[in-house]
Amino acid sequence: MTTAKRDTYTPETLLSVAVRVFNERGYDGTSMEHLSKAAGISKSSIYHHVPGKEELLRRAVSRALDGLFGILDEDHARVGRPADRLEHVVRRMVEVLISELPYVTLLLRVRGNTGTERWALERRREFDHRVAELLKAAAADGDIRDDVEVRLATRLVFGMVNSIVEWYRPDVRGMGEREVADAVVRVAFAGLRQG
Amino acid sequence: MTTAKRDTYTPETLLSVAVRVFNERGYDGTSMEHLSKAAGISKSSIYHHVPGKEELLRRAVSRALDGLFGILDEDHARVGRPADRLEHVVRRMVEVLISELPYVTLLLRVRGNTGTERWALERRREFDHRVAELLKAAAADGDIRDDVEVRLATRLVFGMVNSIVEWYRPDVRGMGEREVADAVVRVAFAGLRQG
Repeated sequence: MTTAKRDTYTPETLLSVAVRVFNERGYDGTSMEHLSKAAGISKSSIYHHVPGKEELLRRAVSRALDGLFGILDEDHARVGRPADRLEHVVRRMVEVLISELPYVTLLLRVRGNTGTERWALERRREFDHRVAELLKAAAADGDIRDDVEVRLATRLVFGMVNSIVEWYRPDVRGMGEREVADAVVRVAFAGLRQG
Repeated sequence: MTTAKRDTYTPETLLSVAVRVFNERGYDGTSMEHLSKAAGISKSSIYHHVPGKEELLRRAVSRALDGLFGILDEDHARVGRPADRLEHVVRRMVEVLISELPYVTLLLRVRGNTGTERWALERRREFDHRVAELLKAAAADGDIRDDVEVRLATRLVFGMVNSIVEWYRPDVRGMGEREVADAVVRVAFAGLRQG
């Protein structure tokens, strides 16, 4: 198995190894040497696939961003009352975050030291803005409470959703995407109080 | 002013400089040299106050933990229906987090490489557990929804509250502790939906 590893290497497996190492050591703290060791292939083999680590970062955060932006193109995010569209988007954000956990984790940790990082931050801001617009439209309809400022409400919902990368582990207690998504939607839209 | 700096140095000012540097560079990435430069005093002057950087970390996270645990001793956290006590605790968590922003930020970033870090993580878990117990009691009373598992609900509320350290800046748009605390309590307990 180990000897065959080298031959079966694809850009896809290299990417998943790189994302794991970036998340463990931080992007700044990761060298091509670290990637080479973790992947078990030589640096020149890595250079055969990509010009450098920034390209691996670009591909990794693109995967997370494509997942998130893809949500906004779904029917339920485009058609219907803004409050229902918002609810759909929040639910799907949780599902994408869990199904693409290492990629979204990396995206959320991006700092902005390189061009790729600044681009990723810009795209994140754009996504946040699109969700904030939906919240604003839902508030204008009277479906969303108007005593919490839109930008602040958006930040709190993102805070709740994004915190999932800090504690969710696929192997712990078998909590699925669905259970977590249901919980987030219930708390964010209906609140903890009942009765 | 600058020349007098050295004489007016107190353990308190040294602590606030250390916390700023820890938050900027990460605790692991901070050397006594960095602290000496940032504080504008010699390393031996720092050693006059503390045996090393771990003691500064201990004092800093203690300040954050004392603020948080202090909430649990307040009357409104101890007397009354669990759901109301929980609401009080969540509101006060936001206020403490904002008033002790750099200290709580540092606490939330602690990783667990040193004894002090592991102790801080243990204390954080204890605090989370105390809040989870309150949520459980409120659910048993029928005041809190029972279709979101207690541990998961606690994590989501902490996720929302703790995310504040990522975006709250005292100088931005003059949003006060009160406004943010109100918003968190409204979203967490009553939800975004209205009507």
